[in-house]
Amino acid sequence: MAAKPKTAISPTREENYPEWYQQVVKAADLAETSPVRGCMVIKPWGWAIWEGMQRELDDRFKATGHVNAYFPLFIPMSFLEKEAAHVEGFAKECAVVTHHRLEPDGKGGLQPAGKLEEPLIVRPTSETIIGDMYAKWVQSYRDLPILINQWANVVRWELRPRVFLRTAEFLWQEGHTAHATSEEAIEETLKMLDVYADFAENVMAMPVIKGEKTPDERFPGAVSTYTIEAMMQDRKALQAGTSHFLGQNFSKAQEIKFQNQHEQEEYAWTTSWGVSTRLVGGLIMTHADDDGLICPPRLAPKHVVIIPIYRNEDERSQVLDYCRSLSQELSDVRYYEERVRVEIDDRDLRGGEKVWQHIKKGVPLRLEIGPRDIASDSVFLGRRDQGPKEKSGVPRAEFVANVTSLLDEMQQALFDRALKLRTEATREIDTLDDFRDFFADDAPGGFAMTHWGGLDEKVDEVIKPLKVTPRCIPLIDDPEPGTCPFTGRESKQRIVFAKSY
Amino acid sequence: MAAKPKTAISPTREENYPEWYQQVVKAADLAETSPVRGCMVIKPWGWAIWEGMQRELDDRFKATGHVNAYFPLFIPMSFLEKEAAHVEGFAKECAVVTHHRLEPDGKGGLQPAGKLEEPLIVRPTSETIIGDMYAKWVQSYRDLPILINQWANVVRWELRPRVFLRTAEFLWQEGHTAHATSEEAIEETLKMLDVYADFAENVMAMPVIKGEKTPDERFPGAVSTYTIEAMMQDRKALQAGTSHFLGQNFSKAQEIKFQNQHEQEEYAWTTSWGVSTRLVGGLIMTHADDDGLICPPRLAPKHVVIIPIYRNEDERSQVLDYCRSLSQELSDVRYYEERVRVEIDDRDLRGGEKVWQHIKKGVPLRLEIGPRDIASDSVFLGRRDQGPKEKSGVPRAEFVANVTSLLDEMQQALFDRALKLRTEATREIDTLDDFRDFFADDAPGGFAMTHWGGLDEKVDEVIKPLKVTPRCIPLIDDPEPGTCPFTGRESKQRIVFAKSY
Repeated sequence: MAAKPKTAISPTREENYPEWYQQVVKAADLAETSPVRGCMVIKPWGWAIWEGMQRELDDRFKATGHVNAYFPLFIPMSFLEKEAAHVEGFAKECAVVTHHRLEPDGKGGLQPAGKLEEPLIVRPTSETIIGDMYAKWVQSYRDLPILINQWANVVRWELRPRVFLRTAEFLWQEGHTAHATSEEAIEETLKMLDVYADFAENVMAMPVIKGEKTPDERFPGAVSTYTIEAMMQDRKALQAGTSHFLGQNFSKAQEIKFQNQHEQEEYAWTTSWGVSTRLVGGLIMTHADDDGLICPPRLAPKHVVIIPIYRNEDERSQVLDYCRSLSQELSDVRYYEERVRVEIDDRDLRGGEKVWQHIKKGVPLRLEIGPRDIASDSVFLGRRDQGPKEKSGVPRAEFVANVTSLLDEMQQALFDRALKLRTEATREIDTLDDFRDFFADDAPGGFAMTHWGGLDEKVDEVIKPLKVTPRCIPLIDDPEPGTCPFTGRESKQRIVFAKSY
Repeated sequence: MAAKPKTAISPTREENYPEWYQQVVKAADLAETSPVRGCMVIKPWGWAIWEGMQRELDDRFKATGHVNAYFPLFIPMSFLEKEAAHVEGFAKECAVVTHHRLEPDGKGGLQPAGKLEEPLIVRPTSETIIGDMYAKWVQSYRDLPILINQWANVVRWELRPRVFLRTAEFLWQEGHTAHATSEEAIEETLKMLDVYADFAENVMAMPVIKGEKTPDERFPGAVSTYTIEAMMQDRKALQAGTSHFLGQNFSKAQEIKFQNQHEQEEYAWTTSWGVSTRLVGGLIMTHADDDGLICPPRLAPKHVVIIPIYRNEDERSQVLDYCRSLSQELSDVRYYEERVRVEIDDRDLRGGEKVWQHIKKGVPLRLEIGPRDIASDSVFLGRRDQGPKEKSGVPRAEFVANVTSLLDEMQQALFDRALKLRTEATREIDTLDDFRDFFADDAPGGFAMTHWGGLDEKVDEVIKPLKVTPRCIPLIDDPEPGTCPFTGRESKQRIVFAKSY
């Protein structure tokens, strides 16, 4: 029997996927649990990836006419009560502020004091507080549309937190728009879904399916919720971003009214849409392997790490000079309107340990440069999405000339690999037996494309014991009708069923 | 008697400075009070200014070797208790989370439920939660220094909130660093003070005095606090940024220990430093005039606004074409590594109203372009820091060629004007009578440069009734000793006394 190849992450994906995920987060130094239940600390490498995501998303929001603003962290309890479905959806996970100071408790410690007249909720989402402001800002059709986005932290008390994927506090952006017509609001909802899909596929290299949520999976208070769903390497689905058409539900609850061009009073039509730090979890579970994270080049905090190799002080100064001039040359190359990001890692650390740190963190391109490479004016190159031992000598000038195409190739290769997995793990399923087999505990699972005739207890009877949910009704041009295997009803098209995060 | 010139802001600075400030915030559409006591809504124009500040500061933090990370919003109550001076300083203004869900109250409303075992404090600052993590991360001198910054929201319950200047929730950055030696930590503290001063003077065009706080004005728990102090147009001081040398106070309270090179255990030396959305208030009070805000070009969300002037559809399309090509040409000009930011304001609004909106928002350069200007290939230019009626015709090519130098000139002119005010309103004061006269209710006030022999009741007896505080002990190369007029003690140098925000 061949020996198992040694991997940097233990256990491997195959051995224990959930634990592998935790170990990648640790090995790539992305985040850590904190002493505050359910809250994480995002460490510098993890934050730099999120910063890259923010920059790319923010550019796209601005290019589609949105502006940023900021609304309060706290929401008065009475605001949440205004939209019935909304409060129902969030009441069980609200952090509640009840006091505004601390005083000595007489036993050498402190206790809360200064009770608030009305409790404040730490925002789980901001529809209600933002809507209250929009009600003041909107008087006439001339005040519409309002196209605002907010970058913020939100809190939803989680009983089973999981770093990046499900944390009590998380960071996100939430777009909130108000429009004069239903058509325009729906157009906005779908436009932002497209922005998310473009970002996921072209920046994160993570293929997604755009679709509408089934009614039971809608955002609390929405008329319709759209989603992008990605497949992780364990074949489970991750809801990676959502865009909600809120109709007039919130505008009626909050009195967002305007005079139309015919001087009639109407309620505005609103939308909201968001993605969060959960995307970092999605990035890991899409691209990481048994040696750690692999950063898609467009989100890599560093594109190239240069590791100088030397045995003595003489060699050190010669090698470092060479590395610095190469680093400068690479930094002058433009990659997507920015510079190629290069780091020279000259820490006093064993070469092997250093190399493995960068592999685990997923830096796309790794150069090792010693006196012999300098003599031949070449570099020793490792590409992170290829095996850790596949390295090759490349003439320096050739490497510099090709660095952006290498990065582009790797970006594409990551996308292709993820798409291949998804394609292989997606099956059209037409019978209940096949459905149950597909999602059996010992089966690999995946996305089941199955006909569906609408919400029904008969669907739940099958999918709930399997821990499967309808992920989305894909937005496709030519839906093919069929028969729902759960109910026998007519079905307009196949929808995606999967286990999920 | 000459008629008072009409101004866009009423009251004027002279008539009622505090109310003028509120009216500028409103007229420039920067922010608004929210239904949550003490919390503000930062509107898109105000947010864009803060975004510019964040970008400029973040670049400087990274250039000085810092990385960003993110720590939890909540701090367990027991963490605050660890550093005695720290909890003393913040206990009276803490928002306290005591419950984690809501339940029906039986009267159709909701009530807090799920009481937490230990109350959580919404961070008023993050030394304690960040220090707790550092204690885990630091083992050896090789783990030092840690140079981390966080962009975050913080909450300090305010009884007398004032938009941007003093709000219950505000946004800021907080740097937290840990070092192996006292010298290195002090160097870091002063380096970041320099970064703040550079940013304030060269980006905000706001002259500042760098200095050390007197002991009674230190950050709770700090060994020494450094500050940049700016003079507002009402001659009061604004503390615009602070940098704290924390010594080993926090590391001892939180057990941040490391093995030094001689294998001895030592406590780390820590620093923290921050600036906040308060800077937007400082920007307003430094540069705005009786017509509204004036944005220093380096922070202006738009550098140039183009207002097309036309009377009919034929003219409209001709004028708009011209404006678009000019806008494109201007956008291709680089200004501080970015593009010149141009907006064409083609809203369906009276020309005069439109012009005044941009004046009130403080856009640096305003172009009005109609058919006659096009015929002579020139533009009608208004520079915001000059009077609203001072406009001039400039050949288009000349304007495009000169746009960056115009912006630079305006940036410098704003700084010069602010420095001139400060210079005129700063006086060396040597007697108590002069001191009392300088700060009398009906006197203009300003910065009193006065000798000071250390903390003493006799100082407080004079300054407290005048509502004056010591602002800082300026960091200067050649301090001149003298005699403290309050106590008769020896004084090493003059320090700054002023009324303040």
